[in-house]
Parts: sequence; structure tokens; C-alpha cells
Amino acid sequence: MRFGGNDDEVLERLKWLASILAPALSAALRECGGVPLKGIIARGLSMGDEMHQRNVGCTGLFLRQLAPALVRAVDDRETLATILDFIGGNDQFFLNIAMVMGKAIMDPVRAIEGSSIVTAMTRNGTDFGIRVSGTGDTWFTAPVEMPKGLYFPGFTEDDANPDMGDSTIVETVGLGGFAMAASPAVAGFVGAGTAAEALDYTRAMFEITAGRNPEWTLPSLDFTGVPTGIDVRKVIESGIVPTINTGIAHRKPGVGQVGAGIVRAPLACFHQALAALAAELGVA
Amino acid sequence: MRFGGNDDEVLERLKWLASILAPALSAALRECGGVPLKGIIARGLSMGDEMHQRNVGCTGLFLRQLAPALVRAVDDRETLATILDFIGGNDQFFLNIAMVMGKAIMDPVRAIEGSSIVTAMTRNGTDFGIRVSGTGDTWFTAPVEMPKGLYFPGFTEDDANPDMGDSTIVETVGLGGFAMAASPAVAGFVGAGTAAEALDYTRAMFEITAGRNPEWTLPSLDFTGVPTGIDVRKVIESGIVPTINTGIAHRKPGVGQVGAGIVRAPLACFHQALAALAAELGVA
Repeated sequence: MRFGGNDDEVLERLKWLASILAPALSAALRECGGVPLKGIIARGLSMGDEMHQRNVGCTGLFLRQLAPALVRAVDDRETLATILDFIGGNDQFFLNIAMVMGKAIMDPVRAIEGSSIVTAMTRNGTDFGIRVSGTGDTWFTAPVEMPKGLYFPGFTEDDANPDMGDSTIVETVGLGGFAMAASPAVAGFVGAGTAAEALDYTRAMFEITAGRNPEWTLPSLDFTGVPTGIDVRKVIESGIVPTINTGIAHRKPGVGQVGAGIVRAPLACFHQALAALAAELGVA
Repeated sequence: MRFGGNDDEVLERLKWLASILAPALSAALRECGGVPLKGIIARGLSMGDEMHQRNVGCTGLFLRQLAPALVRAVDDRETLATILDFIGGNDQFFLNIAMVMGKAIMDPVRAIEGSSIVTAMTRNGTDFGIRVSGTGDTWFTAPVEMPKGLYFPGFTEDDANPDMGDSTIVETVGLGGFAMAASPAVAGFVGAGTAAEALDYTRAMFEITAGRNPEWTLPSLDFTGVPTGIDVRKVIESGIVPTINTGIAHRKPGVGQVGAGIVRAPLACFHQALAALAAELGVA
């Protein structure tokens, strides 16, 4: 995937991420023996995070665990202060970590014979794609939809690009739009309505998932687990598609994020996937 | 107030707080020009904190703001790591800060002629005391009640001391038990019931307060402000007393916290205060 329109500031930051931040995080993680993520996510769900458009709780929890190790791992004091400023200054820092965790959780689920569980969802600004366990590495794609949401001041839906990015791995593990009930604040931010309406988004996702994750629970639904394991059969039976909490990017490269909203996974991907799975099993 | 039964570990920690942590925090706050607290509280309320029995969100938000300044202000690297470990390892760290903020907010409200607003509530394990603005520095006291709550494993209400401590300044500014609606997780922790029942605690406090604070809002009540400014007249009219989210201390010194629960301010304090205020105004 190519990101056009990157100016010097963007390129400088990417270089800093690769040459300064990444080695520092790596050294700090070795110093403290790693930071277990599932417990942080569990706590984040009781702090209004859904781990896609809101990561303010988990970013703080992660920093609290990692900061002492960063101090011990990074020699230069000004570099250390800059790293802590960077993490501290970005409420969405943990999204990067949540995405990697999502991938690490779902990759071992790939290629289980007969399994109708979705192992990845992603979009590139043109198409939306899903992978299903029983059909291995095949992508099932359809034109991506436009997010519906709220725009930052000065922008409208005329500025929006069709939905893009890899962050839908977060919904694939039961977070983001699936965990909307955890996050009345994010419901307002993405234009999903009131706290009561936020619960409905999560309830709908129970209809299309294999189970509820007892490790990641939702206080506002009396601590039931997040809907987890999207089952293509249930999607087709119910006609309900995954809800994704997404950032809205400007259609011109380099402008960046112009809003936040909800986008629905296109049903056509799931039709193709179920047909392919049936063919694989010889029941088509 | 005397804390008996302090062993060497407690005394060592108190010494470390005074000689290492306090000067470091002070230097860091000067380094960064201070950390505004009202915005952190506002965010904490959307993260499940009520700032008395739950400060996990605000502790992270505070550390994110202060950590770079701590790095720049503290020379010794191991001391710095120890400080970050201490703050990072204590979900309730921010309670200390919330209490000081509460005092700083309410002290200027003291001694306003004719005002029936409560400016402080506190308890010492024997008595509960309140101060009211129109009657200045006079304390109105009554025997403190026993908290009702949940106990840590191995402890029962036979172990509990009557309620104690200065932290009720947090409820005095509309947080803690007054902001129970912000915190379904704390409702479970203090034995206040489900998320829906947590809302009722906050709704009751609207009956005895002068207003709703538009700077500190509650997502689960569609962003209405926290009930603020306890009015002794409304307490007496309604018979509703302030709800306090409290830690339960063991009755033997040195054992420490054995549970968490809810305690009610005794109505007798408010009766005395209203009578004194009426006498002060010549309407008794």
C-alpha cells in the first residue's frame, strides 16, 4: 500500500519512529520482560476505550508499565524525554499496539479446516477485504463503503476518502465497533448517538459472532464478554455486517484525518467467502 | 490525627515520600509550568473514574503529562525509575492529587455570608464533621457510621473500623459517590450494585446540590454535569444525605485497608449546621 503526499515532516517522523522510538521500545520491553496486553485491554474496556477510535485509557496503562523500563533502557536523557512526550501526547498511541496484538491473536486461527471464522478484515481506500480461516490466505473483496460520521471543523463528507487502513483487525478480535458498549464517549465522537444507542451496536454484533470473550468484559452490559469470532455463516443468515469505528481520511494525500465515523463491511465479501468455504468442503 | 501501629516499612515509605518523591514532583511541576487538573478530571469521568475509589484513568493521564518533566528534573536515573515505578504501580496515586485539588477548590468558598453550601466533610474514625460556608470554620460533628461494602478475602465487617480520613473532600466537590454514574466498575467494587443502580446514586445527589458542574460531565447520564455544591437546606428538606465511596480500614492500627464500600454522612451534622446558619442570620 502506497501513502502519497508525504511532506518532510511526515518523512522525518517516520525516520524518528524507525531509528529512535522503535529501538528504545524494543530495549525497554527486553529490560522489563515484556508487557502483557490482554489485561491492559480488559482494563481499558472499563475505562471507555474500544481500542479503535479511543485508546486514552490503554495508552496511560501501557506507559505506566513501560516508563520505568524506558528510563533504564535509554541512555540519553533528552531522547528519553522526547519519547515520553511523544507517547504522552498521543491519546491514540495504543492503537498501534492493539493492531499488532489483533494480528498476533488472529494469525494462528488461519487455515483451520472447515472454520467459518473471519481471520482478518482490511481496506485500502478502494476495496474492503476479508480472510476466513477455512479458506486460508484467500482475500474476498468488494468495493469499500464511505464512512458515516462527524467531521472536524472545516471539513464535510465531500472531503472524505472511502474507508482505508489495516486497523479493522481490532474489530476482528471483538474490539472497536464490536465493543461500542464500552465507550459512550466514542459513540458521540463517531456519530453513533447516545450511551443507550452505543449498547445496540454491540448487541447487534452478538448476532454474528461465535462467542463472548470472558477475558474482555463490558461493564455497561453487566460484564458480558465482547462479541468475538465473526462467523461468515451468521453474517449471511442475519444480513448483519460488522460495524467498524473508523477514522475518516481526506481524499487528497497528505491532509490527514478529517473526521471519525462508522463504516459497514460490505456484505458481498461474506457471500463470496461462504461460497468459497462451501466449495472447499464440497457442499456447494 | 494520629496513625498508630506504623511499622518500619511504613515509616521508610513516608520518609521516601518526603525526601525523594515530593521534591522530584515539585521540580517537575516547575519544569513544565504545572499540570492543569480540571481537564484531567473531566477526562477521568469518561474513563470510569469517580476520583475516590477509582483513579486508574487519571493516574495515567497525570503521568503522561508529567513524565517528560520528571525526566528533565530528576538527575539520578535509578531514582527516576523508582519514582515512575511508584506512580505506575499505584492505581490510586491520583487520589492524593484529587484531594488537594478539592481542598483548593472549596477553601475559597469558606465564609461567604448566608451561604448554605458545605465546604468540607471529613471523619476521624470516631466522628464525622462538616463545615458550611455561612458559618465559617465551625465544625458540626456527629458519630461516624460504619461503611457498608465488600471485604477483601479473609476479612469481614467484624474487622472494620468506623469510617475515617480526609478524602471526603472529593465528594464535597461533586466527585466520588456523587459521580458514581461515571463508574460502573467502582459500583461493583464498593457493593453499590449494577451499572443501572450506579446511576441512581448520582441522581439522588442532584436532590441535595446547588447545581451541575458543566466542566465535569457524566457520559452515562448523557453528559449532564456532576451534582455539585451540597446545600444543607436541601439535605434537611429531602432527608437525603451525601453518599461517600470509601475505603474500609481495619480497626487495628497497621493492618490497613480491608475493603471498600459506601458510607452515609450522618444527618445530625446537617441539622446542627442549618440551625447555626439560621442563628447566624437571625432567622432561628
